[in-house]
Amino acid sequence: MIKVVKFGGSSLADANQFKKMYDIVKSQPERRFIIPSAPGKRFKEDDKVTDLLYKTYDIILKDKDYKKIFKRIKSRYLDIIKELNLDLNLDEEFEKIEQNFIQKSGVNYAASRGEYLNALIMAKYLEYEFVDAKEVICFDEDFNFLPEETNNKLKNCLQDKENAVIPGFYGATPSGKIVTFSRGGSDITGALVARAVSASVYENWTDVSGCMLADPKIIKDAKVIDVLTYRELRELAYMGANVLHEDSIFPVRRSLIPIRILNTNAPVDKGTSIVSETDKQAKYLITGIAGKKNFVSVNIDKIKMNTEVGFCRKVLQVFEDNDISIEHMPSGIDSMSVLIKGSNFNHKEEKVIKEIKEIVSPDYIGVDRNVALIAVVGRCMKDKIGLVGRICSSIANAEINIKILDQVSSEFNIIIGVNNEDFEKTIYAIYNSFVIYD
Amino acid sequence: MIKVVKFGGSSLADANQFKKMYDIVKSQPERRFIIPSAPGKRFKEDDKVTDLLYKTYDIILKDKDYKKIFKRIKSRYLDIIKELNLDLNLDEEFEKIEQNFIQKSGVNYAASRGEYLNALIMAKYLEYEFVDAKEVICFDEDFNFLPEETNNKLKNCLQDKENAVIPGFYGATPSGKIVTFSRGGSDITGALVARAVSASVYENWTDVSGCMLADPKIIKDAKVIDVLTYRELRELAYMGANVLHEDSIFPVRRSLIPIRILNTNAPVDKGTSIVSETDKQAKYLITGIAGKKNFVSVNIDKIKMNTEVGFCRKVLQVFEDNDISIEHMPSGIDSMSVLIKGSNFNHKEEKVIKEIKEIVSPDYIGVDRNVALIAVVGRCMKDKIGLVGRICSSIANAEINIKILDQVSSEFNIIIGVNNEDFEKTIYAIYNSFVIYD
Repeated sequence: MIKVVKFGGSSLADANQFKKMYDIVKSQPERRFIIPSAPGKRFKEDDKVTDLLYKTYDIILKDKDYKKIFKRIKSRYLDIIKELNLDLNLDEEFEKIEQNFIQKSGVNYAASRGEYLNALIMAKYLEYEFVDAKEVICFDEDFNFLPEETNNKLKNCLQDKENAVIPGFYGATPSGKIVTFSRGGSDITGALVARAVSASVYENWTDVSGCMLADPKIIKDAKVIDVLTYRELRELAYMGANVLHEDSIFPVRRSLIPIRILNTNAPVDKGTSIVSETDKQAKYLITGIAGKKNFVSVNIDKIKMNTEVGFCRKVLQVFEDNDISIEHMPSGIDSMSVLIKGSNFNHKEEKVIKEIKEIVSPDYIGVDRNVALIAVVGRCMKDKIGLVGRICSSIANAEINIKILDQVSSEFNIIIGVNNEDFEKTIYAIYNSFVIYD
Repeated sequence: MIKVVKFGGSSLADANQFKKMYDIVKSQPERRFIIPSAPGKRFKEDDKVTDLLYKTYDIILKDKDYKKIFKRIKSRYLDIIKELNLDLNLDEEFEKIEQNFIQKSGVNYAASRGEYLNALIMAKYLEYEFVDAKEVICFDEDFNFLPEETNNKLKNCLQDKENAVIPGFYGATPSGKIVTFSRGGSDITGALVARAVSASVYENWTDVSGCMLADPKIIKDAKVIDVLTYRELRELAYMGANVLHEDSIFPVRRSLIPIRILNTNAPVDKGTSIVSETDKQAKYLITGIAGKKNFVSVNIDKIKMNTEVGFCRKVLQVFEDNDISIEHMPSGIDSMSVLIKGSNFNHKEEKVIKEIKEIVSPDYIGVDRNVALIAVVGRCMKDKIGLVGRICSSIANAEINIKILDQVSSEFNIIIGVNNEDFEKTIYAIYNSFVIYD
C-alpha cells in the first residue's frame, strides 16, 4: 500500500510545522512519496515565500535592488534548517538561484524555487531521496503540460525507490526550461505522483480539518464534510469553495484514487475523504453549500420565443462569438435569462446587447448586474422529496427574495440566484436549516 | 364607445342560446359588432356543426352518400329559425352550399359554412346588417393571412355602420377562395374587428364564467381569475390552459384593447378581464396554474461544461438542425437538461443523441420521457418573498418529487417539472396551498 502525501504551505511554514510533518510521515511507513509546497505564512501578516520570489524577480526585472528581499527568502529557509539542526548547506543553491535571477531566467523559474528549496530541506530532514520535479514533470516547449510523458517518467523514476520527496508546482521542458502549474499547483504534482505509483490514497495535508459544509468566513465553525464525491468537490470548487485546486483532482479522479484532506495541526481529526463514488449518505442531507457573487443576468423577453426554433441557440451564439462562456440559462415562458460571470462581460456589454437585439429582436432586454449564485450540492437526492421546498422556505424565512432557480433532473444540485447583498444571509439560512436545526 | 362581441359555439348551439345572446346584445347599445361561431354542442354527446361539415366534405371526397349527414346540418339551423319564428328562408343557401360541396370547392370552404349560416340567422334575429367575412378578412393566394389589408377593409366597411354581424373563423383570397383560420379562429375574427373599429372592449362570450385558476378537469369548482394580463394569458395558454385561442389575442394586444371573458349562461357573473397591464394584485398571490404532460428531458453531463465556450450553443444547434424547438434548458454545474415536446422528438431521438455525442462528447447523456411541466404564473411578484418556497413545500407535502425547477429573474413564472403521473396531484397541491388554505 502506497500513500502519496502532499503538504501545503502553511503545513511547512517553519521548523515547528516541519516537526509536525515529520511525525505524520514517519507514523506510517506507507507514506512513501512526499510533495512539499513552498513555506507559507507563519502568522496573518506574514508573506508566503512564493510571493516573495515573485516580488524579487519583479524587482530584478526593473533593475532595482533585490538584495534585501532575497535575504528575507534565504532567512526563511536558514531558520528552518537551523532550528531542525540539519547538516545542510544551501549556500551554493542560493548562489545559483541568485545568478539565474540576475540572468532573468523566467518568472516560472523564479516562482518554482520555493518548492525546490523546501523539498531539499524536507528530503534531508526525512532522510528520503530528493527527486527534482524538472526531471519527471514534463511540458513541451510551448509550456503545455504533457500528461502521458509525465506519467511514464514518474513511473520509471519512482518504481525502484522506497521513498522520495518531489517538489510540487513545477516541471520542465525538454530543453530544461522550468514551467509552473497555475497557482496552487502543488496539488496537481501530488495527484500526478499518486496516479503514477498507483497510490491507494492521496493525502492532502493542510491547515483545516477537511472541506467545510460552507465557507467558514460566512459560517463560523462550519461543520466538516465526511465524504465528498469527486463530482461534488468539483461542483463546490466551481462555485467558489476554496480547498483543493480545481484542476488538481483530474489525474487522481481518472485513476479512481481517493483523496483525503487532513489537518497538519490536528492530525487525529478525521478530515474529508474524496472518493469517486459512495453509498454513504451525507450526514446532513445536503453535502455542501458554495457560491459566488457578481454574476450578470441578461434577461430577454419575446412573445412566442419557445415556438421559434433556434431562438435560444441564436442568443447563445452571440455570447460565443464574443468569447463569453455561459453559466446558466434559466427560462420561463416567453422569457429567458443568460447568466455569465460579470468579469467576462462588463467591457463587452454594449456589443453583446446590440448583437442580441439585431439577431432575435427581443421585446425586452435588460441587464441585472447584481446577482450572486449559490449552489446546494448533494448526492443520490434526485428522488428525495421536499429538499427544494426546504431550501426555498429557509431562504424565504430569512426574508430573502429568490431571483433565479435552476435545477436539472439528473443529479441534485440546485442553483439559487439572489441579490449580491443577500449572499451571506442566504448561505447562512440554508446552512442553519440543514445543519443547526436538523 | 364600441364593444365588439364574439359568441362561442355553445353560446349559439340552439334557439334557447340565441335568445340569451339576443338579451345580452340588446341590453347595451355599445354592443355593435357581433361575431358568431358555428352552433356547438347542445348536450354532451352532440356534434358541433363544424365537425359535421368536415365529415360531410370527407364523405363527398370519398364519393359516398352525404345526404343524411347534410340533412342533420340543415336541421340544426332550421330548428333555430323555426323556434325563433324568424322570417328567413335558407333553401337557396343550402342548395348553393350542397352544389359547392359536390364540386369539391375545398375543405376550408366546407368548414366555414357553419359560421356563415349562423351569422345569417343572427343578423336576421338581431336585425343587424350581415357582412360576409370573405369581403373583409383577407388572405393571399398561398393562404397567408394579410393583417394590414384586413384592417383597412374592416375599417372601411364598418366605419359607417351602426351595427353588423360578421361570421368568425374565415376570410378569402382575392380570387374569392375561402380560407379558414386554425380551429377556434372565430376568436381571431373578433379580435381583428375589435382592432379595426378601435373597440373599447372585446367581449368573448362562452360557457364558462372566465378563465379558471387551474384546469377545472383537475380542480372541481376552480376559482375564476378576476384580471389577467395578456402576458399571463399567453403564458397560461402556452402551458395548456384552454380558454382563448392562443393566436387570437395578438391583434387586440397590439392595440391595447382589453378582452372580457363572459358566460352566456350566467351573464351577471363578472368573468375575467384581460388587460395589457394592471396594478391590481391577483386575489390569490398567484394568477393561475397550467401545465402539460409528455415532455422529454435530454440530460447531459460533462465535466467543466460551464468553462467551455459554446457548449450549450452546440447542443442547442443539434436540436435546431433537427427542427426541434426548445422549451427550457435548466442547468446545474457540469450538467444541463434540454426540455422539448415529446411529440417533436420521439422519431428523431436516435439521430439527435448521436449528433450531440459527436459534437460535444458528453460524459453522460440520457433521455427522460416521463416529464410533465407545470407553470405557476403571476405578476409583480419578482420581489415577493417566499412564493417559491411555498410552492415547493406544498409539492413536497404531497410527497411529490420535483425533477426540474426553472425560474428567471425578470417576471414571476416558475416552471416545475414532475413525473407525468404526479401531474394532477402537483396542480392540486399548489392550488390548495394558494386558494383553499389562503
